[in-house]
Amino acid sequence: MPTGDEFDLIARHFAPLANDPAARGLLDDAAFWPVDGPLVLTCDAIVEGVHFLPDDPLDQIARKAVRVNVSDLAAKGARAEGLLVCLMWPQARPARDLALFAQGLQSDLAHFAVRLLGGDTTTTPGPLSIAVTAIGRLAGPRCPARADAEPGEDLWVSGAIGDGYLGLLARRGAIAGPATALAALTQRYQAPDARAALAGLMASHAGAAMDVSDGLIADAGKIAAASGVGLRIEASRIPLSQAAIVVLGANPIPPAQLYTGGDDYELLFTAPQAARSDIIAAGASAGVELTQIGQVVVGAGVEVVGADGGPLPGLERGGFIHRFTT
Amino acid sequence: MPTGDEFDLIARHFAPLANDPAARGLLDDAAFWPVDGPLVLTCDAIVEGVHFLPDDPLDQIARKAVRVNVSDLAAKGARAEGLLVCLMWPQARPARDLALFAQGLQSDLAHFAVRLLGGDTTTTPGPLSIAVTAIGRLAGPRCPARADAEPGEDLWVSGAIGDGYLGLLARRGAIAGPATALAALTQRYQAPDARAALAGLMASHAGAAMDVSDGLIADAGKIAAASGVGLRIEASRIPLSQAAIVVLGANPIPPAQLYTGGDDYELLFTAPQAARSDIIAAGASAGVELTQIGQVVVGAGVEVVGADGGPLPGLERGGFIHRFTT
Repeated sequence: MPTGDEFDLIARHFAPLANDPAARGLLDDAAFWPVDGPLVLTCDAIVEGVHFLPDDPLDQIARKAVRVNVSDLAAKGARAEGLLVCLMWPQARPARDLALFAQGLQSDLAHFAVRLLGGDTTTTPGPLSIAVTAIGRLAGPRCPARADAEPGEDLWVSGAIGDGYLGLLARRGAIAGPATALAALTQRYQAPDARAALAGLMASHAGAAMDVSDGLIADAGKIAAASGVGLRIEASRIPLSQAAIVVLGANPIPPAQLYTGGDDYELLFTAPQAARSDIIAAGASAGVELTQIGQVVVGAGVEVVGADGGPLPGLERGGFIHRFTT
Repeated sequence: MPTGDEFDLIARHFAPLANDPAARGLLDDAAFWPVDGPLVLTCDAIVEGVHFLPDDPLDQIARKAVRVNVSDLAAKGARAEGLLVCLMWPQARPARDLALFAQGLQSDLAHFAVRLLGGDTTTTPGPLSIAVTAIGRLAGPRCPARADAEPGEDLWVSGAIGDGYLGLLARRGAIAGPATALAALTQRYQAPDARAALAGLMASHAGAAMDVSDGLIADAGKIAAASGVGLRIEASRIPLSQAAIVVLGANPIPPAQLYTGGDDYELLFTAPQAARSDIIAAGASAGVELTQIGQVVVGAGVEVVGADGGPLPGLERGGFIHRFTT
């Protein structure tokens, strides 16, 4: 007997996901969670038409909402332990579609072994919007800030850069290539890997760390600015996925565009040279490739050098910025 | 030099509000908060056109976003200690208006002595939407659930019922009355009192407790259902504010409509009869009127009885429900 009020919908779709006693079955007004700190907390929203496309699958949208937050915690050396999910559901979307959203949410709660603590479900006359708060605890001795880079350290990145950007182009039908490559890139755009398995490494060995969401160059610039250092990146070392390499071969896209596209959700971090073997071992243990792409230097800003040692062309735009009306 | 990117806007408007070291000046990707639990957590969003009017003042909108969450924590016996504020700002609203929003936020951070831990600021093609996560700790021995009412207990409510509903009517120009009364009611709609001062009472003496946001009768029904009891409310005891009494005298509104209107954000709770004098004393100490409006009885549902002991007319609609498309 499908009805349309929020209490029924929460009871049907979300309460079964909240199996930790702290959530009180989502039947109460707040969660009561016996956790001890210190805690690492983050809150990121994704909005239809800004962070995902209106016809992206709802299970993937739910997973992206979770992952952008899990990724932030991982960069700060923390594993997510609890989530609060605030869902603003368009009046025009059928409530039955909540089932697919809840399915994606459930899948990621299991994947990251995180408890759903609570949330809110409301209607909106606007676009589908999801605000998630993620709370975790440190997986090692310290919580690396953006401001913690020191000259002499290496600069590292996890996984591969540019897949999210190419996945968005693939979703828009703007690039050609083998279907398997386009599907892999689309998947990385819709539900990016979040490097939760690297939280321990970040908390043990990273100097500065953050996740790359607005583009590698732009986000490197944030570490440089916060730390009062320069970052020197060797373009030839920036890791690309096999799918990206195939698609770059079939489309007139300069690789530099991948360094400024958003939606990577890889971890960018600095670490002492003495930690290199520990870092490689931690990456292997986590099943995530880690690549040393440059160095922290005395100075300011981000310099990307090509194979000839000169500055790389095509970097006019640093990264994605939310532009507000002034 | 006004610019329009999110980092400048956060630095200018919100970073000055985040003066607790846990927030890392809002310059990092997450907060690092040395708190020990157990924690009480809640997350509520407010959306333009659903929870507030498009031309409501932005400082009041910010305060409402805070207060609906502080109110939830108070009902659960907790004082808010940290907030994360996720702001989805319409592309069509000038960024300079963020200053007024931030001013309202700052005012309530001070009023409730709560720290801004973090958040997110993004653009949206839709309505202004704000999702707040509030985290607090218990102000007494227990966290009252909706399910904790026992037959024989009294039913209490804080403050006055119906002001939020009348304030919405006043904002819409739908009711007449003295300007001072209309202004007082408008204020209660735009930035409801949140009964943070009663958190200790809830954690010490309440059986079941919740805040009234969807209408007194509807929310009483939730306690009745969750606890497996009936609630008997005497209509003549339901407290009304002086402004509401004046406006009811000047407009053809049956008082029963006030019991089903939303946006009260008063606390509704049950307590043993033996606690009466403690409750009265706690209300006096907090400066909040507390009124015993009925009893918890064996049975189910909510019965509102008039002065003649019979059922009260005009209660066709229980309360506000977010209707979803089925």
